[in-house]
Amino acid sequence: MTALPDIDTLTLKQQVAQMVVVRTCGYLFDHQIPYPDWEATNSTMQHLVELGIGGVIFLGGSAAELALKAQQMQTWAKIPLLIAADIEEGVGQRFPGGTWFAPPMAISQIAKTNPQLAAQYAEQMGAITAKEALAIGINWILAPVVDVNNNLNNPVINVRAFGETPKEVSPLANAFIKGAKAYPVLTTAKHFPGHGDTTTDSHVDLPIIPHSPSRLAEIELAPFTSAIASGVDAVMSAHLLIQCWDAQYPATLSAPILTGQLREKLGFTGLIVTDALMMDAIAKRYGINESPVLAVEAGADILLMPSDPEGAINAVCEAVKKGRISTQRIRESVERIWQAKRRVEGINIAPSTIAQKLAQLEALKTVDRILQHSQVVNGKVPLQPSPNGRNLIVVDNLLGSGKFLTEQSPAVSLPKSLGYTTVLCDRHTPFDPTPETDNLPTLLQLFIRGNPFRGSADLTQVGIDWFKKLLNSNNLQALVVYGSPYILEKLVPAINSEIPYLFSYGQMPQAQTIVLHVLFSK
Amino acid sequence: MTALPDIDTLTLKQQVAQMVVVRTCGYLFDHQIPYPDWEATNSTMQHLVELGIGGVIFLGGSAAELALKAQQMQTWAKIPLLIAADIEEGVGQRFPGGTWFAPPMAISQIAKTNPQLAAQYAEQMGAITAKEALAIGINWILAPVVDVNNNLNNPVINVRAFGETPKEVSPLANAFIKGAKAYPVLTTAKHFPGHGDTTTDSHVDLPIIPHSPSRLAEIELAPFTSAIASGVDAVMSAHLLIQCWDAQYPATLSAPILTGQLREKLGFTGLIVTDALMMDAIAKRYGINESPVLAVEAGADILLMPSDPEGAINAVCEAVKKGRISTQRIRESVERIWQAKRRVEGINIAPSTIAQKLAQLEALKTVDRILQHSQVVNGKVPLQPSPNGRNLIVVDNLLGSGKFLTEQSPAVSLPKSLGYTTVLCDRHTPFDPTPETDNLPTLLQLFIRGNPFRGSADLTQVGIDWFKKLLNSNNLQALVVYGSPYILEKLVPAINSEIPYLFSYGQMPQAQTIVLHVLFSK
Repeated sequence: MTALPDIDTLTLKQQVAQMVVVRTCGYLFDHQIPYPDWEATNSTMQHLVELGIGGVIFLGGSAAELALKAQQMQTWAKIPLLIAADIEEGVGQRFPGGTWFAPPMAISQIAKTNPQLAAQYAEQMGAITAKEALAIGINWILAPVVDVNNNLNNPVINVRAFGETPKEVSPLANAFIKGAKAYPVLTTAKHFPGHGDTTTDSHVDLPIIPHSPSRLAEIELAPFTSAIASGVDAVMSAHLLIQCWDAQYPATLSAPILTGQLREKLGFTGLIVTDALMMDAIAKRYGINESPVLAVEAGADILLMPSDPEGAINAVCEAVKKGRISTQRIRESVERIWQAKRRVEGINIAPSTIAQKLAQLEALKTVDRILQHSQVVNGKVPLQPSPNGRNLIVVDNLLGSGKFLTEQSPAVSLPKSLGYTTVLCDRHTPFDPTPETDNLPTLLQLFIRGNPFRGSADLTQVGIDWFKKLLNSNNLQALVVYGSPYILEKLVPAINSEIPYLFSYGQMPQAQTIVLHVLFSK
Repeated sequence: MTALPDIDTLTLKQQVAQMVVVRTCGYLFDHQIPYPDWEATNSTMQHLVELGIGGVIFLGGSAAELALKAQQMQTWAKIPLLIAADIEEGVGQRFPGGTWFAPPMAISQIAKTNPQLAAQYAEQMGAITAKEALAIGINWILAPVVDVNNNLNNPVINVRAFGETPKEVSPLANAFIKGAKAYPVLTTAKHFPGHGDTTTDSHVDLPIIPHSPSRLAEIELAPFTSAIASGVDAVMSAHLLIQCWDAQYPATLSAPILTGQLREKLGFTGLIVTDALMMDAIAKRYGINESPVLAVEAGADILLMPSDPEGAINAVCEAVKKGRISTQRIRESVERIWQAKRRVEGINIAPSTIAQKLAQLEALKTVDRILQHSQVVNGKVPLQPSPNGRNLIVVDNLLGSGKFLTEQSPAVSLPKSLGYTTVLCDRHTPFDPTPETDNLPTLLQLFIRGNPFRGSADLTQVGIDWFKKLLNSNNLQALVVYGSPYILEKLVPAINSEIPYLFSYGQMPQAQTIVLHVLFSK
């Protein structure tokens, strides 16, 4: 890693460029880019990195590919890059190959009976995530989520939170930070000042938080205060309108919130990073190139995923030239970025050895323990398998379920080995209402959790329809829910006490194995 | 690459081990292995490679991961490995990232009107496949298929063939070989003596070929003779019972066929490789460790994917000790393996530069041209989009369709951008027969091609049901078939001449883009 240059040797444009973090996909080849509107090609990325952007955020691709691509990007950069990823549930959540943890709320479930063990799990989760991130070149973890999920219809936070009260969230988020800080990698508390109490998804529209300052201090801010005390490196702003603090601008663009509350009142001296500026709640309302300027004015150090990175850099430079933003304000951000870059390790990716660094046995065992300790088993188990039974799997979207559902994943292959016929549905599948011809004993498996972009945390209609049909025809053999405990809660009252129902926070194959081995006593 | 040792310095067991090629998955981490019964863990692979197996065959994983894994395997090997893959339709067919060609039959379609252009495409396909294979460490292409697909219900060859007559197949297969031979990589003509005329899939059972020697010479053998004359490096045996030559053993285990016909009569001096020995037609009938012995007795040089690699090695050694097989016979095979290994390039994988070697613009353009020239467009186009229309996509198996069908693939995203609602079905989806409530103008897209393991090349019942329903209710707006031209042929007679129908041999996103841009005149 080349040393950081003296800030004063950088031009204004070079300084502003360091404040920008650009989205890129982890796939190696341009023709694999899934979102060409949002993800730059290799040559554009090379141009932007050579221009001097401060960092990149990776989405998509396998862990192995990402390692190659991260290595390539760092070789293009004159000033070492921050390389960020939304790995809230481990590297494997985003990048196949790494360890994939259950969502944080699984750990908060364990904390209800054993807070010490839960804190130990959260610390291990932070440590394993950090270790694996570094192995593939990621030096900035955009986690932990410290939002308090006190709204069970929250479509976007939901099981991503470490609990439903600040008392639950703070110690677990702190443990995650502590675990990660054992490695030279940055952590991020998000989404400031708290995204837990909304039913609106800011990917879709701008949520409004109507609470008073005292309520915010009591519930939403507490885990941020605590994360800052634990030495969290960055705080990510939320695209939320906090009416009591700023009736005009959402937190991401609000000086009273980012500077007044976060920087001055909470005394946070680390990196303030915006949530993705390309999200509709910001880009559509405040303009693609005006919103970066507003964010810097508000106090942000890092502009995450602006829709037009060069446009954002130019707009901020223009605002400095016009006197809207002072050069001192820019310099302060770059100083904080330099502090952060000094904390992260020099680039040292050895792609040929990552097979020995990711998803090692001890990591997989930790995941196993968290899944075991947080799952729910009720009713009469083991279930006697029906050799002519139906294995009905309802997912949110079949087109996006390949990560946890393939021909070889246990939710498919295990019932199949017992004679069950697999039937797959998602919210687009036409519902077949004919009850007379259909008298199959059915194992119903639901893979549903809060889903950004769908704008709802609820069970889909096709899931509800099938559930009712199976209940009415007495064909429900067992229910397994993977993902959201809130969905389980809604279904359970209708179930006869004899019928087994099981729940796992995890959706990955490992979670399926654990739950189904209990159900069928394998 | 270390030089090859003098064969006489190897023990019998070391020589026999060189005849074995083991299956492994391209994913980097053990927990990602999709078929743990068939694919060894990293530590078992290391053990087998250090034991001295002759090579590996890769399935699964991305091109980038495979490069890392191939590199790792070669560092374990004392004698350089042959690294094989079934990349009949380009590296991208198996390993995301590489160029993914349309199936060979697309080129034979072009040959019907322009044989010279078709031969040029086949040569480019061979060259691009070879170049990309080498870039990720593959030095043995298990292609071209030289089977003559003269049975339209063939479930396993189908569009993988370069045509339906030897006259079509030979020049195109030769052109593929010529293109590949410009690179230091091995090619393979398969499946000897010809797998085109059967409706049985040897993955499932042993097909019987009842033809006479003169008919075999005229149809099935002609492309093999021609490929051998073109210098093909290896010939792969088929698991077929050729009654006129050997009533007892399938080709893979038959001395009259492998030695009598292929080695002696056709004078082939290269590598004779079995098809996968773990397939039911062999492993179940002749025994896991007896079938490798029979294959060596029959004349095979390479035992591909034995169910138990060490068991196979020991069984062959035992057969030598008992006098069933001579030491000379083993030595001859190792000599041919040495010749093959000398022809392939020294290992020279640079994972960080493969982004500049795979799926380059010229390669993608070649794929584009082949798709354009082979597609079928009929009826009235462009179609006026229906903003309340339904985009009904029927695939063979939703659980395996993620490679060509995601939320971002054109078959989904393009109609969606025009207002269509996406509905996905596969052969497991319950059919919804209610016609009254359902009056949606529907774009029907079928992704079906010959499917090994399903044992049928036909359209699935759900596809037939939906097709009839849409015809009867006058709701079929347009039909697009991706994959098998035989399925199109079956459906077309029922379609009103006004209704547009389109066909592409390709199923990949690139094929979807080309067809749908014609349909909607984008």
